[in-house]
Amino acid sequence: MPRYKAIVAYDGADFFGFQVQTKNGIERQRTVQGELNKAVNQMAKNPVPAIKVVGASRTDTGVHAFGQVVHFDLPFNIKVDGVRKGLNTLLPRDIIIKSVHEVASDFHARFNTHAKRYIYRVSTQDFTDPFKRHYTGHFQWQLDVERIKLGLPDLIGEHDFASFAASGNQTATTVRTITRADIEINNQEQELVFTFEGNAFLYNQIRIMVGVLLEIGNGRRDVHDIVRLIAVRDREQARFTAPASGLYLDEIYYD
Amino acid sequence: MPRYKAIVAYDGADFFGFQVQTKNGIERQRTVQGELNKAVNQMAKNPVPAIKVVGASRTDTGVHAFGQVVHFDLPFNIKVDGVRKGLNTLLPRDIIIKSVHEVASDFHARFNTHAKRYIYRVSTQDFTDPFKRHYTGHFQWQLDVERIKLGLPDLIGEHDFASFAASGNQTATTVRTITRADIEINNQEQELVFTFEGNAFLYNQIRIMVGVLLEIGNGRRDVHDIVRLIAVRDREQARFTAPASGLYLDEIYYD
Repeated sequence: MPRYKAIVAYDGADFFGFQVQTKNGIERQRTVQGELNKAVNQMAKNPVPAIKVVGASRTDTGVHAFGQVVHFDLPFNIKVDGVRKGLNTLLPRDIIIKSVHEVASDFHARFNTHAKRYIYRVSTQDFTDPFKRHYTGHFQWQLDVERIKLGLPDLIGEHDFASFAASGNQTATTVRTITRADIEINNQEQELVFTFEGNAFLYNQIRIMVGVLLEIGNGRRDVHDIVRLIAVRDREQARFTAPASGLYLDEIYYD
Repeated sequence: MPRYKAIVAYDGADFFGFQVQTKNGIERQRTVQGELNKAVNQMAKNPVPAIKVVGASRTDTGVHAFGQVVHFDLPFNIKVDGVRKGLNTLLPRDIIIKSVHEVASDFHARFNTHAKRYIYRVSTQDFTDPFKRHYTGHFQWQLDVERIKLGLPDLIGEHDFASFAASGNQTATTVRTITRADIEINNQEQELVFTFEGNAFLYNQIRIMVGVLLEIGNGRRDVHDIVRLIAVRDREQARFTAPASGLYLDEIYYD
């Protein structure tokens, strides 16, 4: 059984997130993993859907990906470009396989050590741009980007991010390491684009961090409020979670 | 009754076109005009929807606009920026009012002499980019852009475009004047962007012209097949209509 690693992009707007959700054994929601499972089993000509596609990251409802990574096994050898083209022909138009590589049979998209890069797009127009409503978060209030730039480095390093975890978080530890946190300003598009890299992120962590950063930019929080939030370990204090529509899983790096 | 002219942008993906369609007096489809009528009458606090919003161009299902022009009357004077903000608060997120001007009471968005600019975006990737599926037409076959560049000038001028009118066309004459027809290549985005300007266009004319131009680029038609198509006046000969998703009403110029 050859194992394949694929890089997958998807528009998250019409999905209930990445991960298959079953209720009484029935998939009731349209998910990215569910569509991938269907296509891979169809390509393998499996009468029963025996192959399970494993993803690196369980993106939420409405969250997009430019570079989700998945792995799966096929019962026979197919050339990687044949796998890519075959799956793209079978998949719905809101998912695309960007590339396929054959990998060792012990490669695991989620458990192999990796780092992730996410981007978050914020539209700063006074009203929502119709063409961006599914693809950005929208923040129409006063923003001083210089204040955000001062706050961003406070995220870098190994910290306990308990204040930045949504209540659904069930991980053993809330300590995570962030290696990159920066912002780019696109004046022509009236957009701010955040980039975050780290070994792993808690449930909703990036959307909560963006919420805090926007409140720093707006003046509702102290420039270095992130230092205080990390110290207090209290999820009640980071109030605003930026919407899923602005978040993109951009790239996953493996060792 | 002051009259207002507004420039409107919309994402056409979730609309059954611009124009209200009624069946037995009931609006069964979601249309741009229907949403604008609702918002304007709500702002005017009309118990019955007495105000009708008039649009310059009846864009089709799935066609987008950056610069549709509409006019409407309000029963009382409101400052133009108040009209813009008020309507944007009331409208759904796939429509936005970009600007509002007060105009003379005889201004008419459709009947006043004007010219229109449309753009058509073609994605040339081998499979549909998930983020562009609603916002471009997709042409995955071989394209020689130099051939298209040679064919484009054949459209310029006053011609009988009968071969380029969809069967739904019911205008008295199929003679139209095109003043601009060009193409830009965006290699990074793997896109071709056509721009067309003219006094008026027949039903589906631009989508049929783009279809012919892509077939010229693909080598399935002679470089100067447009000259022949204009002469034969036969709508059967221009086979392929490019999809609505790539078409944008970009700007309307009034005298």
